[in-house]
Amino acid sequence: MGDFHLRCSECGREYAEDPARLVCEACSGMQEPGGSTRGVLEVEMTGLPERWPDFGSSDPRFLADFLPVKDPQSFPVFAAGGTSLMRARRLAGERGLDRLWIKDDSRNPSGSTKDRASLLVAAKAGEYGLDTVAAASTGNAGTALAAVGAAADLAAVVFVPATAPEAKLVQMLSYGARVIPVDGTYDDAFELCLAACREFGWYNRNTALNPFTIEGKKTAALEIARTMAPDVPDVVVIPTGDGVILAGVAKGFADLAASGLIDRIPRLLAVQPEGSAAIVRAWAAGAHDSEPVRGAHSIADSLTVEAPRNARLCLRRLRETGGAAVSVSDAEILSSIPRLASRTGVFAEPAAAAALAGLAAALKAGLVDKTESVVLLITGSGLKDVPAAARAVTRPGPVEPTLEAVSARLAL
Amino acid sequence: MGDFHLRCSECGREYAEDPARLVCEACSGMQEPGGSTRGVLEVEMTGLPERWPDFGSSDPRFLADFLPVKDPQSFPVFAAGGTSLMRARRLAGERGLDRLWIKDDSRNPSGSTKDRASLLVAAKAGEYGLDTVAAASTGNAGTALAAVGAAADLAAVVFVPATAPEAKLVQMLSYGARVIPVDGTYDDAFELCLAACREFGWYNRNTALNPFTIEGKKTAALEIARTMAPDVPDVVVIPTGDGVILAGVAKGFADLAASGLIDRIPRLLAVQPEGSAAIVRAWAAGAHDSEPVRGAHSIADSLTVEAPRNARLCLRRLRETGGAAVSVSDAEILSSIPRLASRTGVFAEPAAAAALAGLAAALKAGLVDKTESVVLLITGSGLKDVPAAARAVTRPGPVEPTLEAVSARLAL
Repeated sequence: MGDFHLRCSECGREYAEDPARLVCEACSGMQEPGGSTRGVLEVEMTGLPERWPDFGSSDPRFLADFLPVKDPQSFPVFAAGGTSLMRARRLAGERGLDRLWIKDDSRNPSGSTKDRASLLVAAKAGEYGLDTVAAASTGNAGTALAAVGAAADLAAVVFVPATAPEAKLVQMLSYGARVIPVDGTYDDAFELCLAACREFGWYNRNTALNPFTIEGKKTAALEIARTMAPDVPDVVVIPTGDGVILAGVAKGFADLAASGLIDRIPRLLAVQPEGSAAIVRAWAAGAHDSEPVRGAHSIADSLTVEAPRNARLCLRRLRETGGAAVSVSDAEILSSIPRLASRTGVFAEPAAAAALAGLAAALKAGLVDKTESVVLLITGSGLKDVPAAARAVTRPGPVEPTLEAVSARLAL
Repeated sequence: MGDFHLRCSECGREYAEDPARLVCEACSGMQEPGGSTRGVLEVEMTGLPERWPDFGSSDPRFLADFLPVKDPQSFPVFAAGGTSLMRARRLAGERGLDRLWIKDDSRNPSGSTKDRASLLVAAKAGEYGLDTVAAASTGNAGTALAAVGAAADLAAVVFVPATAPEAKLVQMLSYGARVIPVDGTYDDAFELCLAACREFGWYNRNTALNPFTIEGKKTAALEIARTMAPDVPDVVVIPTGDGVILAGVAKGFADLAASGLIDRIPRLLAVQPEGSAAIVRAWAAGAHDSEPVRGAHSIADSLTVEAPRNARLCLRRLRETGGAAVSVSDAEILSSIPRLASRTGVFAEPAAAAALAGLAAALKAGLVDKTESVVLLITGSGLKDVPAAARAVTRPGPVEPTLEAVSARLAL
């Protein structure tokens, strides 16, 4: 609970916190509607802990010490984070690696990493005395906002593409959110949410725009580092849509390095689907911003964006950490679902399974060495999109309830 | 990791552990095929810890101290348990209660309480040197076995009714289990699994028969007690199918009372759907065993059993703890899904939401007083059965991506 201010990630200008301020007023002026966001604000904390707190990484007090809230009581009763980090020896062996870990963020309350960001945004809304928070979402961010809204008695308005998977829509409706399915893409939902927040005075949780989304997501890095200390992983593999989770993980490691708790920062590896690879394309071209991919499409709905809102900052963090960006096909994503599940017991949605597909691509491309230690960030539960997982497995037909029928089936 | 033996829950006869022994040889002789199991064996540990271990309840070492394994290394890397216990003030207020908690077991690795039992069974299979474990399941137990099997490199064979929800089938297939959908009821699958284990020499994880399923599930009670200590809840509400989760929770509190860590045992409240209420009927009749409910049916697939396998022991534990059993309608179960989710941020499958419906019924019947402290055990994730949850919410239609369309929608 240190003091903090906001700092523009482009020009370095400082701002005091203000719920109505989303981006740097100097840098954002050059921005085209629907493009990557310029002048994303990051939290800069003073008084970060210089030693690991006494609390375990699943204790909310552990995270509170590193987050920009005035009072730990600001947090609603919503146990985001504190997820498992597990060594994956079977999977590692198959890939010829030795040291591979899974950070299983499917075990967040609503089933995705987005709960981390929504928890912090809800805490800040409470501090500001705001009673309605809105977000545009491919599905998981809105679900996370709806869940924490239920826990905090905060109204949630969620703009989603009407094509979002059924499970995510039903889940956010069950949490009691006001859901507005938009006849358009995620990018359309994003612009509409922005306009609606201005019009109706709602607090805007849009990823990349609200500085606390990056800050909330950094807790994944804090937990990884805390659990592995004194070791630091060489590489963290991060499924990437808008680029905010990657920026959040980078921020977490940067904060820890600034406070002296780790002595180096892992390389970050962004993974995008081939059909929605704006950041990968920009990375390959050596560009500092991405060009929109019109008609972006992928089985990984959580990663499907035409114009990644946080591309500029994400690309910068890739450069600074010595990272890289790779793309994977939908077929590789799909086959990674049962591969990951059957070797680790972790059932991932397509976007999350993309981390495993991305690791394979990075090993092949020589971007990761087999002697290195690697963490895969599994960003969402496979139960979020069962129809996708169903495409990757063979469904056996029923048998008669007799031993003979079972024997015949086993002989197949 | 104390020593232990097995003891018949009916006649008290002792047995040494033996993977081929499922029930008491003296008591089980009177059993009809397809009926409630007689002579269920329970683990009796010597050398239970007399103080709370230093580990947090989400640390696997916390549980290992209370469980019948020879070596903590027996446990595969599979982080079952350690789930959140959260105070639910909004929900409590609506019910006129003051002290209400949610034990959110939807946050287990495969999304249900069954992970607790499967983890211990997998550890025991490892100690016995067995490489195949089989189970009959309405869905969650088999999914849990499949998940821990993937983590432990243990073959899992799962017998499910062919009508099990799609999500559970796809999930267990993704984990790499050998899935055998049975053209029949859960009860048919149960008998078939029993016969197949005898025929093929597989280790049988069938609930109520394998003594370690009760023992694994007791960890939910250990965690509740540890988190609330020195308080002990007055009532724990438990969705009930076969009655094994209830027996497990009872066993956990009994172990803690035996070791002096708690000074009283909560009353246990069993909740069953009206269409599958064999234990509730027996309870109402003052019987010590249940009569099968032919054609049992409910939206809560996890609770749908004709003949609850553990009815005898479940009824005994209800009597011993001063508990009760109530039934709830499918309509009450369905409406409890959004009610629970929108007040707490916990999205439950129908079987789990039945706990909330059961609390309402028990308050109405005077079985629970509003001044008492109550824990609802939420046994599985709402993502396990999205089609059921979809029936309980209204799905809004899409809007055009314009502010005018949003305003019009909000005015509705």
